[in-house]
Amino acid sequence: MKSPGGRLLTGIALDRASPTPLYRQLYLQIRQQILAGRLQGGTRLPSTRTLCKEQSLSRITILNAFDQLIAEGFLVSRPGAGTYVGAEWESRETTTDELRKPPRLSSLSQSVLSLRSDHFSGISYETWEPNCPTSFLPSQGAFDAFPLHVWKRLMNRHLCQPTKAILGYGEVKGLLRLREAIAEYVYDARGIECEASQVVIVSGAQQAFNLLGMLLLDPQDSIWMEDPGHIAARIALQAQGCRVVPLRIDEQGIDVQQGLRECPEARLAFTTPSRQHPLGTTMSYARRQELIEWADRGNRWIIEDDCDSEFTYGSRPLPALYAMDQWARVIYVGTFSKVLYPSLRLGYVILPQALVDPFCAMRAVMDRSPSTQLQAVTADFIREGHFLGHIRRMRALYQARQECLLSALQQRLGNFMQLKPVSAGMHLIGWLAPELDDAAIAKELARHQIHTYALSDYCVQRYLPPGLLIGFAGTPVEQAEEKVEALAQALLKMGHSLQSGHKN
Amino acid sequence: MKSPGGRLLTGIALDRASPTPLYRQLYLQIRQQILAGRLQGGTRLPSTRTLCKEQSLSRITILNAFDQLIAEGFLVSRPGAGTYVGAEWESRETTTDELRKPPRLSSLSQSVLSLRSDHFSGISYETWEPNCPTSFLPSQGAFDAFPLHVWKRLMNRHLCQPTKAILGYGEVKGLLRLREAIAEYVYDARGIECEASQVVIVSGAQQAFNLLGMLLLDPQDSIWMEDPGHIAARIALQAQGCRVVPLRIDEQGIDVQQGLRECPEARLAFTTPSRQHPLGTTMSYARRQELIEWADRGNRWIIEDDCDSEFTYGSRPLPALYAMDQWARVIYVGTFSKVLYPSLRLGYVILPQALVDPFCAMRAVMDRSPSTQLQAVTADFIREGHFLGHIRRMRALYQARQECLLSALQQRLGNFMQLKPVSAGMHLIGWLAPELDDAAIAKELARHQIHTYALSDYCVQRYLPPGLLIGFAGTPVEQAEEKVEALAQALLKMGHSLQSGHKN
Repeated sequence: MKSPGGRLLTGIALDRASPTPLYRQLYLQIRQQILAGRLQGGTRLPSTRTLCKEQSLSRITILNAFDQLIAEGFLVSRPGAGTYVGAEWESRETTTDELRKPPRLSSLSQSVLSLRSDHFSGISYETWEPNCPTSFLPSQGAFDAFPLHVWKRLMNRHLCQPTKAILGYGEVKGLLRLREAIAEYVYDARGIECEASQVVIVSGAQQAFNLLGMLLLDPQDSIWMEDPGHIAARIALQAQGCRVVPLRIDEQGIDVQQGLRECPEARLAFTTPSRQHPLGTTMSYARRQELIEWADRGNRWIIEDDCDSEFTYGSRPLPALYAMDQWARVIYVGTFSKVLYPSLRLGYVILPQALVDPFCAMRAVMDRSPSTQLQAVTADFIREGHFLGHIRRMRALYQARQECLLSALQQRLGNFMQLKPVSAGMHLIGWLAPELDDAAIAKELARHQIHTYALSDYCVQRYLPPGLLIGFAGTPVEQAEEKVEALAQALLKMGHSLQSGHKN
Repeated sequence: MKSPGGRLLTGIALDRASPTPLYRQLYLQIRQQILAGRLQGGTRLPSTRTLCKEQSLSRITILNAFDQLIAEGFLVSRPGAGTYVGAEWESRETTTDELRKPPRLSSLSQSVLSLRSDHFSGISYETWEPNCPTSFLPSQGAFDAFPLHVWKRLMNRHLCQPTKAILGYGEVKGLLRLREAIAEYVYDARGIECEASQVVIVSGAQQAFNLLGMLLLDPQDSIWMEDPGHIAARIALQAQGCRVVPLRIDEQGIDVQQGLRECPEARLAFTTPSRQHPLGTTMSYARRQELIEWADRGNRWIIEDDCDSEFTYGSRPLPALYAMDQWARVIYVGTFSKVLYPSLRLGYVILPQALVDPFCAMRAVMDRSPSTQLQAVTADFIREGHFLGHIRRMRALYQARQECLLSALQQRLGNFMQLKPVSAGMHLIGWLAPELDDAAIAKELARHQIHTYALSDYCVQRYLPPGLLIGFAGTPVEQAEEKVEALAQALLKMGHSLQSGHKN
């Protein structure tokens, strides 16, 4: 056990190609052996001379490593008697590879793990793959059409002088210039009148939903949510321990009457009035009024998620719900993920005056303001007109892509799925025959490298026929037919008949 | 009430210099008046001819605005009878400016608001001010010395091709190339052996603390925290509803024995072993061993915050606590805020294998991975050697700044505060006479534009003498004397004697 040399040397394997210096590798490995109990306290180490020879190392390398280990108490040098592993490492039990059971996690963590549907983990883990085709993934825009040359020019402006303004901690609400640009944009585009001080920059809508959940909801509170509806938002609010009351969608949007019948005491309603996510319905004025009045009467909140209202094909979108609200009950959430690009990680919340300070307190505790550089570039992009130009170009492009993909789908798959053009957003819905299982089909298609989402993943109750969400924004016109053919071939391989919509 | 013209026209004020088209302004303002109840349902609007004349507008501008208002149900056109405000707006009460009481917030929000000390709100709201002097603020580095030209060159590499890889959603754990670079760096610099798969990128240490609190702690769980200690981490964990057990710091670091006496059942310990925050002590090996054994025996977690161990002046820092832990109980939190720059908003967590999946699930629910561009630039910066070079340069620079500021402070204020050089970190502690109130002094100094932090802000119990944290990293050598003189003058104005350390 306490014999020198052998035990130590077997464990050491130095990598001469590594950028880590040899003395450092030797130090780390001896240390590791002591900590793991493989080199026990009291063991005498081989002499430096022996080590030099056996490991083909210079003496200075070994002395450097030993000095550090002695300074840290791992080794003890006894003059004239050699170098020993410190006595305090004597009783150390050898670590086995067998892992002990890790300590428990929080209940919140358990509930988050159970909430995470396959779909949600799919969003997070699969679609990031840079080579994964974006063709039919909803919410994937035309990355190739993003004016990165303009972006680069604006970015370089903010990479000239290393100052505290650009490198230091940012203001908790986000860069003032960006908040002013947003306040101006939403006034013009969404009819929202607000001060820049009511706008808070966040790292995307997802962070906004979480912060708002923490700010506004206690565990056990009931909330109205659209069904089908925003999956990530539902999980965020459920993670707070809230009870979700799913409300059906009809041609006017959310069914407020159902909410009044089933849970009039809900604390909050989450809604996507401009373009219902994922069905695409626009909430009617009457319903909006009803919803706002419900919030006002009962002192309730409304979260308005307005993720891609920029992409409308045809008539101008209705003003935001926030713009109709006289009682400061609506909180507006916007994002640049769709209209610019997802990895920018910038979104914004427009808050009623009374919520500004409490929201900022929560924000400061949870996370700091996003990169000032990225905020500054986004502000310039908006203020110098590139933003509106980009939206206009993307509207035209996406409209052309929609028409082309829709016609290819109708032609090749018109008997398997029913499709209608949409007046907003980035995806079509391919309605399937009622006996089909959309989730199973989406899963199997993914194994053929064809990515769609199943409508049923967005649903809490099952009252809708099955369907597939088919993104068109990421499919160039010239690729539409080929991609549709690949989808058709995959469906055929899976045993579907493209003539009748029924299994062969 | 229902007479035409007059009421409408008084409220309309068009801005001909605005980028918003006139028809849009007219539309928004009429809409606003209807919503606010100032234009009641049934009111007849003036004829377009009248409006043309009185507002000096073209007829097409007015028709455009009216068409939109009619489409949205605000106005109704009765052929031959003119245009009216829709009947459904009839019963609308006029909004008064007096704000109704807003709906209640969550209990979490209340507790966050009560936790937020003046100090913490100071961090978040004041120090962002770009023109606020950074001189004595701890944790403010030498922004002027950041190699922004290199950063710019690396950044431009990732701004050439708009691809899904750089613009699309990133992987939930963060960019693989960055995680690999971090795993290599911490092996070399901190003795940590881990796989890139155990490294998760976050938007800074603050987000890491919150995610870990949510993952590991239930409300009412007790946790050991250093006292004095990390304010933002304490608030984050308290916001989860945890009970903080403050442990005193002696020359060996955290007092584990005190913890064992007062709360042996704590679920987690939060510690800064490399350089105790804010006292600067290094935790001894014996204490580290004691702490790890406590965690192992009772199935507990340890969060190791290692925020600025890069800046050591003199001997190489001890390896991380994570590197000593054989039982996978330690979670390591690192950040680029100090070593690169705060507004980069990139940090990382190194997790025991068993925590990787649960942490990622929580992360995916709370927020997505930070900007891929910034992660890619940081990865390049590390892998191409700029990172280690920058650390070396900053070590030399900060050491010179420390020496210079320390000597200026000792010379001018040696009787008012006691100072010793520090072997790591970015701030000195100026110890004050026991009868002084450091918090009051720091507050008053801030009114003289001199920013320091009071030691007592970091304390839960009061067992230490008062002190001021005086950052040196942001004070160029040539400004040290001048800044110290300004501090001295402010103290004199505040009525302090610089001879004895006592109030005049």
